Amino acid sequence: MSQLTKRSEDYSKWYNEIVVKSGLAEFSGVRGFMIIKPYGYSLWDRMKTILDKMLQFTGHQNVYFPLLIPKSTFTKQEEHTEIFSEGCAVVTHSRLIKTNQDQEKLIVDPESKLQEELVIRPTSESIIWKTYKRWIQSYRDLPILFNQWGNALRWEMRTRLFLRTTEFLWQEGHTAHSTKKEAIEEAIKILNIYTDFSEKFMAIPVLRGIKPYMDKFYGSEKTYCIEALMQDGKALQIGTSHFLGQNFSKAFDVKFTNFNGKKEYVWATSWGVSTRLIGGLIMSHSDDKGLILPPKIAPIQIIIIPIYYKENDIIINEISENILNILKKEKIRVKYDNRIGFTPGWKFHEYEMKGVPIRISIGKNEIQNEKVEIFRRDTYEKTYIPWKDLKNSIQKLLDEIQKNIYKKALHRTQKLIKKSDQYNDFKNQINHSGGFIFAHWDGTKNTGKKIQEETEATIRCIPMSNEKEKGKCIYSGNPSMQRVVFSKSY
Amino acid sequence: MSQLTKRSEDYSKWYNEIVVKSGLAEFSGVRGFMIIKPYGYSLWDRMKTILDKMLQFTGHQNVYFPLLIPKSTFTKQEEHTEIFSEGCAVVTHSRLIKTNQDQEKLIVDPESKLQEELVIRPTSESIIWKTYKRWIQSYRDLPILFNQWGNALRWEMRTRLFLRTTEFLWQEGHTAHSTKKEAIEEAIKILNIYTDFSEKFMAIPVLRGIKPYMDKFYGSEKTYCIEALMQDGKALQIGTSHFLGQNFSKAFDVKFTNFNGKKEYVWATSWGVSTRLIGGLIMSHSDDKGLILPPKIAPIQIIIIPIYYKENDIIINEISENILNILKKEKIRVKYDNRIGFTPGWKFHEYEMKGVPIRISIGKNEIQNEKVEIFRRDTYEKTYIPWKDLKNSIQKLLDEIQKNIYKKALHRTQKLIKKSDQYNDFKNQINHSGGFIFAHWDGTKNTGKKIQEETEATIRCIPMSNEKEKGKCIYSGNPSMQRVVFSKSY
Repeated sequence: MSQLTKRSEDYSKWYNEIVVKSGLAEFSGVRGFMIIKPYGYSLWDRMKTILDKMLQFTGHQNVYFPLLIPKSTFTKQEEHTEIFSEGCAVVTHSRLIKTNQDQEKLIVDPESKLQEELVIRPTSESIIWKTYKRWIQSYRDLPILFNQWGNALRWEMRTRLFLRTTEFLWQEGHTAHSTKKEAIEEAIKILNIYTDFSEKFMAIPVLRGIKPYMDKFYGSEKTYCIEALMQDGKALQIGTSHFLGQNFSKAFDVKFTNFNGKKEYVWATSWGVSTRLIGGLIMSHSDDKGLILPPKIAPIQIIIIPIYYKENDIIINEISENILNILKKEKIRVKYDNRIGFTPGWKFHEYEMKGVPIRISIGKNEIQNEKVEIFRRDTYEKTYIPWKDLKNSIQKLLDEIQKNIYKKALHRTQKLIKKSDQYNDFKNQINHSGGFIFAHWDGTKNTGKKIQEETEATIRCIPMSNEKEKGKCIYSGNPSMQRVVFSKSY
Repeated sequence: MSQLTKRSEDYSKWYNEIVVKSGLAEFSGVRGFMIIKPYGYSLWDRMKTILDKMLQFTGHQNVYFPLLIPKSTFTKQEEHTEIFSEGCAVVTHSRLIKTNQDQEKLIVDPESKLQEELVIRPTSESIIWKTYKRWIQSYRDLPILFNQWGNALRWEMRTRLFLRTTEFLWQEGHTAHSTKKEAIEEAIKILNIYTDFSEKFMAIPVLRGIKPYMDKFYGSEKTYCIEALMQDGKALQIGTSHFLGQNFSKAFDVKFTNFNGKKEYVWATSWGVSTRLIGGLIMSHSDDKGLILPPKIAPIQIIIIPIYYKENDIIINEISENILNILKKEKIRVKYDNRIGFTPGWKFHEYEMKGVPIRISIGKNEIQNEKVEIFRRDTYEKTYIPWKDLKNSIQKLLDEIQKNIYKKALHRTQKLIKKSDQYNDFKNQINHSGGFIFAHWDGTKNTGKKIQEETEATIRCIPMSNEKEKGKCIYSGNPSMQRVVFSKSY
């Protein structure tokens, strides 16, 4: 098994290699589409299970809407359409037929042309709000708190595994409310869920904020977001939660009769996180030896590897399987790799690459001393634990690893959070260490654009925690009321 | 809440109404596409969780392959292509633009025409086997036991909720093996899993068999299937498992080096069950009052309904919540419906429609006597259980209901299994009671076709349990070596 390119040599190459070599995913032959392999899918499945529980616990229900959206529905909300129509998969025909010239070759049957073209959902606001019109009459029908797990498709020019793929897996929530206040509260509630999910399970510290008006979701009034810093100092948007106002209810004419018998337009939110999260997970924690996965979401939490010696193979297997069963009873996701034909060294390398939090190895010495060797993927520490203590200490160790991975990411992030009041400084910081730079901005689109052209940094968000502070725009010198967060980003 | 059309009046109308009124699903505005509503989705989710566990337990791993398949890949296996190209969604463009004439209207941008058309997967053999070529070199790479949960799309002319929709949700398994024997064993192993799932969880008894050669899956060597009888005497195919032989490995040139260093083509299977299962579930058990769901897959196993009297509302709530918590601790899926503004009668009706196996109601009498009223959805029986016995008796009652629903379906099915040796009899049976009719067939496609034209019945399968028995074809009088199963079907 070959080595990874070092992060310090070529970060982007390191990323691509780690995704493939750890067995998470690879590109398919179809441009921009990836294949999620078993290890990657079980990671996604684990993330999905946790987040789904959080969403259901807060009253959200899962539904499933059609993959294909008729063009007339898709294009109802103007602002929304403007951006999503630029790159979308359009279904125009429903049949292939053999050509007269070449019976081997199939062509699109012109006679199967659809009366109306269908667009593969890039996101489902339009088809869902068309349906909500049928479902919502009275305040009694509200709120609607629906979520959908599925695939979506956006035609991307430059794609990267997990981070930006034409097709992606995600959840998209679509809620309907009787008041503006309730809808805003919902959007923020979801941002809080995403924050908890990211910090407590993925071990990724995030910055919570609001997108500047020119970067909000098309069709929304306000986009709340969480942003995380990757190891190369660039930001990654982890999740977004949109307050849609009445934009979609107006586009689809969805009104409800309120308490007083008057008709009003419905208020809305939408929100989502996708397989992109896996990209963020990789770039937050992993190192030059491979993935580092937080125990709470690791598909395999502990790998047991036997170190065979001829004279005691049977004993090693017996003891390993005993330990395996003890750990399984503790509901730990554990695997015993007793494949022959692979050396222990090869296996060590393999599970380091896959980011399994704990490796237990059992050989001659361990049996003589009634201990196991414990290897921590996050710190490379080796310790020994007596067999009899394993049951009681292993969950604690997993919790400690979880905390340590978060702490490390938090420490790294905090070091890269800076204030800047001087444009040359700002440019230096962006180009060298990167990170989140808190700076004053005059609030104009044009300034944002200029800064991006000159530094590649964009305004990631207006932080929700931000205090008001008078100052001057770092670029134009014009007055500003608060700092915003700049960073290069994925 | 209105009543359902009776099954005896109009079975098909009853079916459509029950799906909508129980809140499982409804048609979207898009032709042939349905919306799966929260109750329907949680039912599917429950089915998925159980089946997924069974598949993982037998060594299968989940993966995710692209939704879109390039035309050249899609059309590689000739027989497969022939059928699936007849109705498929073809993506030809990647952009919509504003027209010059009408700035409001968007059209497909002719300049965004794709170099190669993409087909939305009707099933994924082609794209997966194109990938397996890259993954399989040696016998060490085999077997591959992959499964995918996702959506698929087949252009259907006549659609019915769950039973036949253009888009459907399903799992599709795709395995690769080094020997023919192992591949056949895998196909049968899956059929056994489907059988267990159907009988033990869905409470649907099934007949196991092999499709006659003219009805096998296009691109397969042999299709194993399970068929169930619905209440109207028609058969529904519950699931299929295909031995694909070397058809796909040859089409995509997938060879492996065997133990002896020689190159061989890989052996394959594929298999799937879909949201269609929900249609079978409805038509197996439900009655004129609504759904009847087996407890093991019911999203809500027990509904608790308070019968409020002014003077003891607080006590009723207290006791109900107490019972709710006791049942939750027993891991029972239980819900307490204390909504005001709905009468108990309305709620009774609602949860009968939704097929909740047990209803517990708590009112004045129940409090005085320290009992709860228990209503069984499957038998309409009412009994009383003392509060203190509830914890110990409720799981037993759920198990009994599960068994009873299966027994009832089995009894109904067995009554509709008949032998026939005389074509007039056969026609009478098909037209009156329906059911599975075991009859001799001369093995020709033509006879099958004639019988279908005259009776609408088709050969559902050649039963796996069938003993050899010499006889004469019921239609042609030509010799036959065994009986096959005829039925009208969905």
